[in-house]
Amino acid sequence: MRVALLGCGTVGSAVARRLQDRGERYADLLGRPLELVGVAVRDSSAPREGVDPALLTTDAESLVGRADVVVEVMGGIEPARSLIEQALRGGAQVVTANKQLVAQQGEELHAVADQHEVGLDYEAAVMAAVPVLAVLRDSLAGDEVTSVRGVVNGSTNYVLDLVAREGVPFAEAVRQAGELGYLEADPTEDLEGLDAAAKAVILARTAFGVRVGLGEVDRIGITGLTDDDFAHAAQRGSVIKLVASARPAGDGVSVSVRPEVLPAHDPLAAVQGGTNIVVIEAVSAGELRLQGAGAGGDETASAVLGDIVRAARRVR
Amino acid sequence: MRVALLGCGTVGSAVARRLQDRGERYADLLGRPLELVGVAVRDSSAPREGVDPALLTTDAESLVGRADVVVEVMGGIEPARSLIEQALRGGAQVVTANKQLVAQQGEELHAVADQHEVGLDYEAAVMAAVPVLAVLRDSLAGDEVTSVRGVVNGSTNYVLDLVAREGVPFAEAVRQAGELGYLEADPTEDLEGLDAAAKAVILARTAFGVRVGLGEVDRIGITGLTDDDFAHAAQRGSVIKLVASARPAGDGVSVSVRPEVLPAHDPLAAVQGGTNIVVIEAVSAGELRLQGAGAGGDETASAVLGDIVRAARRVR
Repeated sequence: MRVALLGCGTVGSAVARRLQDRGERYADLLGRPLELVGVAVRDSSAPREGVDPALLTTDAESLVGRADVVVEVMGGIEPARSLIEQALRGGAQVVTANKQLVAQQGEELHAVADQHEVGLDYEAAVMAAVPVLAVLRDSLAGDEVTSVRGVVNGSTNYVLDLVAREGVPFAEAVRQAGELGYLEADPTEDLEGLDAAAKAVILARTAFGVRVGLGEVDRIGITGLTDDDFAHAAQRGSVIKLVASARPAGDGVSVSVRPEVLPAHDPLAAVQGGTNIVVIEAVSAGELRLQGAGAGGDETASAVLGDIVRAARRVR
Repeated sequence: MRVALLGCGTVGSAVARRLQDRGERYADLLGRPLELVGVAVRDSSAPREGVDPALLTTDAESLVGRADVVVEVMGGIEPARSLIEQALRGGAQVVTANKQLVAQQGEELHAVADQHEVGLDYEAAVMAAVPVLAVLRDSLAGDEVTSVRGVVNGSTNYVLDLVAREGVPFAEAVRQAGELGYLEADPTEDLEGLDAAAKAVILARTAFGVRVGLGEVDRIGITGLTDDDFAHAAQRGSVIKLVASARPAGDGVSVSVRPEVLPAHDPLAAVQGGTNIVVIEAVSAGELRLQGAGAGGDETASAVLGDIVRAARRVR
């Protein structure tokens, strides 16, 4: 079983190392070994810790052509999209952690995957190792989900938590989060709710099986918040969280991302720092809560590796 | 796709009704309808709300012989075990909610299922709709689970909660739980930790892929607790919970069920009433928490129905 890795950043190198370390485990599980046949990078001369330099290549297209499972962890829209499409058309299973790509092009890519009878999985795109997509898609397949609501962006939650718990002024908390590397290179991704919106779109599609795009998200970031807002919330024993939510509305779905003032007893209120939580309501199951780290190389790799095993099981 | 239901108690009748109500949804999902072809009961003359009387039969063996998916929700060891084995040998997919049967005979039944290349699923056997088995088996397949720890018996948790939060004396709390129907017909199932032990065994096998039986569970129930124990815990700001846990030990696994005094910040400490929680630790994922109702007809039916969809997808 030939696995190709596209990208070797924090997540990619964690995936590459685990494929090596856990080789025996995966061979036992699948009845045959998972062989990492190459790692596509922009600069193959830069060393990658724990990754055999002989595996590095700058020729991603040729690598995709000789894999059964293609794992895209490079991020960005292009060339990720073209390479994934090439892989699907070539009959390879695809795993990606690329939330913006899935949010923007997921429906088109699923159509290509269906046409070529291959799988396209992206558990890592939403809440890292918290397996919310599998739960919505598989475990709740016999139920009717009525609402999905969560804190799905750890960076803004870190900022909001710093203000609420430590009394740090809001602007200062944003500055600290940036300095500590908790915000994306472009901080508006986090602060304006673009990251959360991408996740909300993917959650909405998975939960409700509807077509929905980023443009349909009712989105408000946290940059408009003031220290007064936090003070008022605290006076009422409440906290401000950036809440992503999706629920059916008419024939479609209503998806939003916005700061909400939550009472202390709300399950979303207690979640601290970079932790993510999602609360799913379903007709038969009632309320389910899933919680865990929302980011991190190893945590994201856990979900990617789970999807690789899932994908490998599909390869005949 | 022919579905046979064995048993029509609280869970069975919820499953039967949902198969009817959600017929269109399942047909869309699977590309063909799920047809409930019969419901095996002990007394077919007793009416079952919402279930077509023409579907009721006392001839479970013949019903099993004409189904693609056999759903066992009758409970108890026999005739459930024999009927499941008949179904597997006949090439049917099997779904069961029977935790004692799976804990006692799961390994033998899996061997039969593997031999006949059919699936045996039992998500509903542990924590009702909380999809802990799918998460351990599928989502974390690429990771290494190092510990599973949870409050998995809602009845004892109701009792412990009543003492801790309402100050009800322990013996009185047990009496109230019994009166309200929160304890199994044989209350020792709950109070002596037998129910939790069965779930712990299933969790341990699923998380660690090892052979382990009920006899290997280090089990202490809650009947030995005294009001003094609760008072001491409360003085320290702690709570007593019946904790099920499993972790690797040498070549095998260490599985226990026992009352533990937990500090307030422990994620298991806050869980109230009939709610269940499980905390999974894995090398890459870190800590994941799953929480939801641990019992109830509809909640258990949610998991059974999810497994039915999963099983139906396997039927060629």
